[in-house]
Amino acid sequence: MSPAVAAPRPEEALSLFRDVRARTEALVAPLAPEDTMLQSMEDASPAKWHLAHTTWFFEEFILRPRHAGYRSPDDRFAFLFNSYYVQAGPRHARDRRGLISRPGLPAVRDYRAHVDAALDDLLGRGGDPGIAALVELGCHHEMQHQELLVTDLLHGLSHNPLLPSYRDPEPMPVTEEVPLGFTGHAGGLVEIGHDGGGFAYDCEGPRHRTWLDPFEIADRPVTNRDWIAFMEAGGYADATLWLSDGWARRGQEDWDSPLYWWRQDGCWWTYTLRGPQPVNLDAPVCHVSYYEADAYARWAGARLPTEAEWEVAFRDRPVAGNFLDEGQLRPMPGGGPWGDVWEWTQSPFTPYPSFRPPEGAIGEYNGKFMVNQMVLRGGSCATPLAQIRPTYRTFFYPHQRWQMLGLRLARDARP
Amino acid sequence: MSPAVAAPRPEEALSLFRDVRARTEALVAPLAPEDTMLQSMEDASPAKWHLAHTTWFFEEFILRPRHAGYRSPDDRFAFLFNSYYVQAGPRHARDRRGLISRPGLPAVRDYRAHVDAALDDLLGRGGDPGIAALVELGCHHEMQHQELLVTDLLHGLSHNPLLPSYRDPEPMPVTEEVPLGFTGHAGGLVEIGHDGGGFAYDCEGPRHRTWLDPFEIADRPVTNRDWIAFMEAGGYADATLWLSDGWARRGQEDWDSPLYWWRQDGCWWTYTLRGPQPVNLDAPVCHVSYYEADAYARWAGARLPTEAEWEVAFRDRPVAGNFLDEGQLRPMPGGGPWGDVWEWTQSPFTPYPSFRPPEGAIGEYNGKFMVNQMVLRGGSCATPLAQIRPTYRTFFYPHQRWQMLGLRLARDARP
Amino acid sequence: MSPAVAAPRPEEALSLFRDVRARTEALVAPLAPEDTMLQSMEDASPAKWHLAHTTWFFEEFILRPRHAGYRSPDDRFAFLFNSYYVQAGPRHARDRRGLISRPGLPAVRDYRAHVDAALDDLLGRGGDPGIAALVELGCHHEMQHQELLVTDLLHGLSHNPLLPSYRDPEPMPVTEEVPLGFTGHAGGLVEIGHDGGGFAYDCEGPRHRTWLDPFEIADRPVTNRDWIAFMEAGGYADATLWLSDGWARRGQEDWDSPLYWWRQDGCWWTYTLRGPQPVNLDAPVCHVSYYEADAYARWAGARLPTEAEWEVAFRDRPVAGNFLDEGQLRPMPGGGPWGDVWEWTQSPFTPYPSFRPPEGAIGEYNGKFMVNQMVLRGGSCATPLAQIRPTYRTFFYPHQRWQMLGLRLARDARP
Amino acid sequence: MSPAVAAPRPEEALSLFRDVRARTEALVAPLAPEDTMLQSMEDASPAKWHLAHTTWFFEEFILRPRHAGYRSPDDRFAFLFNSYYVQAGPRHARDRRGLISRPGLPAVRDYRAHVDAALDDLLGRGGDPGIAALVELGCHHEMQHQELLVTDLLHGLSHNPLLPSYRDPEPMPVTEEVPLGFTGHAGGLVEIGHDGGGFAYDCEGPRHRTWLDPFEIADRPVTNRDWIAFMEAGGYADATLWLSDGWARRGQEDWDSPLYWWRQDGCWWTYTLRGPQPVNLDAPVCHVSYYEADAYARWAGARLPTEAEWEVAFRDRPVAGNFLDEGQLRPMPGGGPWGDVWEWTQSPFTPYPSFRPPEGAIGEYNGKFMVNQMVLRGGSCATPLAQIRPTYRTFFYPHQRWQMLGLRLARDARP
Repeated sequence: MSPAVAAPRPEEALSLFRDVRARTEALVAPLAPEDTMLQSMEDASPAKWHLAHTTWFFEEFILRPRHAGYRSPDDRFAFLFNSYYVQAGPRHARDRRGLISRPGLPAVRDYRAHVDAALDDLLGRGGDPGIAALVELGCHHEMQHQELLVTDLLHGLSHNPLLPSYRDPEPMPVTEEVPLGFTGHAGGLVEIGHDGGGFAYDCEGPRHRTWLDPFEIADRPVTNRDWIAFMEAGGYADATLWLSDGWARRGQEDWDSPLYWWRQDGCWWTYTLRGPQPVNLDAPVCHVSYYEADAYARWAGARLPTEAEWEVAFRDRPVAGNFLDEGQLRPMPGGGPWGDVWEWTQSPFTPYPSFRPPEGAIGEYNGKFMVNQMVLRGGSCATPLAQIRPTYRTFFYPHQRWQMLGLRLARDARP
Repeated sequence: MSPAVAAPRPEEALSLFRDVRARTEALVAPLAPEDTMLQSMEDASPAKWHLAHTTWFFEEFILRPRHAGYRSPDDRFAFLFNSYYVQAGPRHARDRRGLISRPGLPAVRDYRAHVDAALDDLLGRGGDPGIAALVELGCHHEMQHQELLVTDLLHGLSHNPLLPSYRDPEPMPVTEEVPLGFTGHAGGLVEIGHDGGGFAYDCEGPRHRTWLDPFEIADRPVTNRDWIAFMEAGGYADATLWLSDGWARRGQEDWDSPLYWWRQDGCWWTYTLRGPQPVNLDAPVCHVSYYEADAYARWAGARLPTEAEWEVAFRDRPVAGNFLDEGQLRPMPGGGPWGDVWEWTQSPFTPYPSFRPPEGAIGEYNGKFMVNQMVLRGGSCATPLAQIRPTYRTFFYPHQRWQMLGLRLARDARP
Repeated sequence: MSPAVAAPRPEEALSLFRDVRARTEALVAPLAPEDTMLQSMEDASPAKWHLAHTTWFFEEFILRPRHAGYRSPDDRFAFLFNSYYVQAGPRHARDRRGLISRPGLPAVRDYRAHVDAALDDLLGRGGDPGIAALVELGCHHEMQHQELLVTDLLHGLSHNPLLPSYRDPEPMPVTEEVPLGFTGHAGGLVEIGHDGGGFAYDCEGPRHRTWLDPFEIADRPVTNRDWIAFMEAGGYADATLWLSDGWARRGQEDWDSPLYWWRQDGCWWTYTLRGPQPVNLDAPVCHVSYYEADAYARWAGARLPTEAEWEVAFRDRPVAGNFLDEGQLRPMPGGGPWGDVWEWTQSPFTPYPSFRPPEGAIGEYNGKFMVNQMVLRGGSCATPLAQIRPTYRTFFYPHQRWQMLGLRLARDARP
Repeated sequence: MSPAVAAPRPEEALSLFRDVRARTEALVAPLAPEDTMLQSMEDASPAKWHLAHTTWFFEEFILRPRHAGYRSPDDRFAFLFNSYYVQAGPRHARDRRGLISRPGLPAVRDYRAHVDAALDDLLGRGGDPGIAALVELGCHHEMQHQELLVTDLLHGLSHNPLLPSYRDPEPMPVTEEVPLGFTGHAGGLVEIGHDGGGFAYDCEGPRHRTWLDPFEIADRPVTNRDWIAFMEAGGYADATLWLSDGWARRGQEDWDSPLYWWRQDGCWWTYTLRGPQPVNLDAPVCHVSYYEADAYARWAGARLPTEAEWEVAFRDRPVAGNFLDEGQLRPMPGGGPWGDVWEWTQSPFTPYPSFRPPEGAIGEYNGKFMVNQMVLRGGSCATPLAQIRPTYRTFFYPHQRWQMLGLRLARDARP
């Protein structure tokens, strides 16, 4: 939530709310109850938990404090479905979310309907703009969980030797190789960050000045074709390309290709939400960690961009591309800076100058994660389009790979 | 499978088969698909896996080798649902059984029906007695998994803070305290083990001689009342009562009462398949490890019996009691040596003299586990009655507690 | 300490004491202070700790309670140098013994001299036979630590890529292959265990009856030549030969040969206390776990003997062989049942019938370890000869390999 | 090594070399051989290893490539004493440095003398300026290891319940409480980083522009008195003050005070290189992690400075204070921004714009650590004074505490 955001009108908030809630239901529609139980690692959560947690968010932060007549269907859900909001009370162990068989999927759907009706009721009465602003925040929160829901599902299903498909397979278009080009930027004293108009998360502001030396940034992300060249050049076996922590992680987890890749009959295959498919050479590489992205950039004689470079380079391009809305659910060849894959930057996730999180539990949304993680920009094929703005910052630990994570090269301007 | 067992007639085998298969279905009937996904630790398996694995057993060891026309609905199930039979091929990782959402519960039920029909067909044609013997083995195998299914389910559900019930709660009968008495036995050169008449597992034979000094054995198991006295006397805090490995495990896992117990409003409560209930003082104590049982016996100035002592003391009592067939699914006050809880003996699970496992994968059934585990005797409220014989040996690691595990005291005869 | 042992005369105890204490010093003489700090795993202790702990044993159990004028040089040593005697008070963490640089080696030697002088004084005055019996126990305790001292040192030095020698290298004699033969025994109702004459540990008694079926036992231990045949036949890669727990451990620790073996220029080499040396084909195989020994026996169509079989087979042979006293410190070709290597039996370490540990901390000596471990018989090239009797039982966990551990085959008598 | 550094003259380099080498020897002089073996965690190394590794650095990077007649006393030392230079070949496992008893301390001293003589010889001949520059780098490298040597020793000795002293205890001066004041800075477009004059590490450059908003920085570090107020206010128990990763670490390691603190008779004590001492209220707090420092600053309504803020605030103050040279080896009350304790900044350790590490193994010095770590500024009581420049950046992981780590507050300028 941005420090000084103009609250939406109640009817706008209600419309957004209905749309987002329906989209989450649609994402879960193809799943059997068994599928919604999968939790394959602590970082990932079961689909059923995402359904309930996003609902709890509205209940906890809007209905309980602001709706006098609201009654929860089960007060114990507050314990089960809080994720990490310390100020909202104790919560169930994160690594045991897959052990909650009850409430089952029908009961969780009832819980959603119950909260939806109460929110409809509350917003229908108009009410204060603070509520509409919180509903908007809850909708953006739920959009983030839509992205997690599908990527967590991919991770969960990937442990099944039958390699089941979430959506029907469909051939990838055959495209031409796009040569790598770079565009120069003059740098200088620039302003980045959100200026408070329209919705944004707290961590996107305050807007502030920062100095950039002249730089160049690639016109397209690194592709699978590029990545295979790196692999064939021994990139995964050459310690001098890697950060020390990255090299150690590579060894512990036996990395020799992106996550979900394997070699079969002389070809590289990858597992996707549409099942197994041959690696498409011209699609952006995906499911690589920061450590791998950084090693690749070093091998390529380049570097990753900073988040400020990324923002100034692309903020004037329209935010459109292969997002969750397209339903592809996998990176496609071609495409601009937005969509397909998140792009690692070399910027650690730190507070912008004069950053202050909001008071209360909502202030835990981003601020307490501002250490050990790296910023990514751009959005992926699992990200709802409506979630993205030029100032949007997402962040992951440098070893993580299960999200739709790729990269784009940058370099210092040649003098 | 006993070394020299009389094979049942095909119609007997078929009748047993139908009965056992139907009982497994009945055990799963109250579960939602989500419940059948729970795997709360590597030692436990999801109910859906038990349904499929017991079916695979018949497919792998009978239908594939002996039924010419048999076709599996999915050959990949052999990988998913093999438990530990190395000679039957590679298998899915044991600790990831909870990540198999597909095949879902309906598909697993179809798999069962498919195999049931093929077995019906095969046995209906009569055929050789080897098949009937293997069917009988498969039925006993499935009965063991019935016991695991309900105890694994208890463990899985216990991680849910809502403490759901598998079966409806029902009050426990109020009973009188039964004073502890001991019965003497003369010992001498005795014979124990199975003699080959009727079904038995390989590890129950050969029947052999062993020497016993005179001993006394308690007339009833240790009760919850007894156990609370031990707890109140500081039994969990006195290292001198414990085996060294037990004391270390106690510390690592913070044991201060049996598994599933907690203190609430001045009373001890326990979680059962019928939901939370106050600890019944006169029911046998349950869910204690060997380490705890051994420490208790030392505190009580007694010891655990050997398995030979147990067998000669009780083999002439009819095998009847509170078994899975009763549907109580929790230990009840009163009762004889059979049923309610397994009773730890002080005997490590080792081969009887001249033991030879059968050839082939079936020989992996018991033999490869003959180290590091302790024998228990008697059967529990989760054990099918038909599974038990006086020579039956079950075995668990000394730290395990999730089965229905209790104890009975013994001591050397007073001279 | 046996339940009913005849105490030695004070002058006998004093003579034994002086001899044992001097031998320990001699073992440490070739070591630099740095060498005496090595602790390479929790199971092993630094040589300096062994020096101090054996001294503490005399101080704690004899001097403090029985010598009115005794003053310890540092009361805090009781915390540092207690091993596991709960009743003797709290103690330093076992896995951090290698982090105690002070007291240094000279100070530990002063501690030894201080205690030696006080014991000399106490025994010189005659005094009650209880003291002489405790001194005898302390000497046997110290002899056990002599064995640990050299085997722990071997383990510690083995982590040094320079592969340093504790004692000078010396070529092994070249010998003829000894064919494998078996000797039959009639079995029957036999008596085993210590009868109370002369020193023995508590766990060696009471002497008791046990039934043995007729059996055959090999005339020599399994040799390195035998073991290489097992390795070449794929013994380490064939799961059907292994106990389930053993197969898992083999995988976790990547076993493909005995501990300390490696392949170099087409030959097998092994690291010993006399430095690296080619594997001597006719020496007993050493540094194999129970799991490996059991798998070998299965591969060889035989089994391991029980400890009762071992005892009745060899108790009439004189206890003489390649012990610590010989100074070889490695198994040599040839030799009888005693010395060279401990021989794994198939018997878990359990109490003999009617076993009662003594009262007090001394009762912790053996009793609390009677679970999860297996008995070995015979003694090794690191064992002091004076420590061994026909009834002597040592015990280790089935995965342990750092002691001088080998095996001998047995089989059921052919009818 | 700075990108464009003026090489020292050979006689300057030789003088520095002799001085640094002698200081290392002096640091080890009070230690027994046993003390030099201590390795209490993977992050710390034994003193003997530091002695040898710093020597290997000169051998590997100067003598082997540049001194034609040089012969190593043992070529295997290159394996034992390489720390992390992948390009210099394979190396011994970092967590097993404490298991290298041989070469012993005398042999390591001989190794030092051997290398010293060869360096003397090489520099005495004059030779090319590249050698003098490498010697200078080696001396700075050795100064870093002097700091590690004493802090690793503190950690190692702290595991000894006897709490031995490295240097004699000496009372701390009693001082007056210094009130907390802040000094404002105008910020703006500033330049930071090393400009290439005199020695600097590669990561200190290139000098570059950066934008700073106006800020205020505290006049003194946070003291123990301050810290106790934080503790008494429940700072260690209030999750809302902590970064999420910090809160998790706090729980795993049971932090409730700085490392080496304990409560005794109503007072806080701390373990130091001069033995146990009461916590001096006006000395800077030490041995706190980044997580703790960050939580403290939040509690105090302030924040940590960025490294650019720190540099511009203090770069004009003379670099003088309580460094290793003083021999105090513990933070003292009073003092300026330099010395006593390193001060955590909120800046992740990242490359400065246009940073390029040098070619070859020397390029691994800093560059490969530029992820997951935080920058500290100022130097500590364990840092050699000659090692520090205003641009000096040290870095540690946010959970680490064994170095002399403290903090200073900053805040945004009040408008």
